[in-house]
Amino acid sequence: MTYSVLVEVQLRPGIADPQGATIERALPALGFDGVNGVRVGKSMRFTVDAADEAAARAQVDELCARFLTNPVIEDANVTIEAP
Amino acid sequence: MTYSVLVEVQLRPGIADPQGATIERALPALGFDGVNGVRVGKSMRFTVDAADEAAARAQVDELCARFLTNPVIEDANVTIEAP
Repeated sequence: MTYSVLVEVQLRPGIADPQGATIERALPALGFDGVNGVRVGKSMRFTVDAADEAAARAQVDELCARFLTNPVIEDANVTIEAP
Repeated sequence: MTYSVLVEVQLRPGIADPQGATIERALPALGFDGVNGVRVGKSMRFTVDAADEAAARAQVDELCARFLTNPVIEDANVTIEAP
């Protein structure tokens, strides 16, 4: 079966995020107040062929740990949608 | 009230995604078969202060259209979580 996968990769809490800090600093001058704690990460969408949802999740978890994230500084949040 | 916001920015369908194509091409050689249609985008998390959820959504939608995305080639997917 083919499952749709969304992987959200975010920097771990405590890791400096210059891109997010730059956005946050710029927004008040652009007319947007009240926006705080901006963190910028990556999102990846793809489909994976697997026998069942557990197998799909195991494959995606390994993919994240080995290639899609740097586990030292990044966390991955995996969402798998049934076909 | 303070709302938690997740903005997922993806390239529109049909726009070439070289980063996703590179990941997809590399995976079979790395031992991951059956992964297709890889698309890479950005994810942004932040908090926004607003009177209610509709006001928060309006503010975030304007923020996305004006600064966080390039509406010519990118779509934004906004998720707002109640505090």
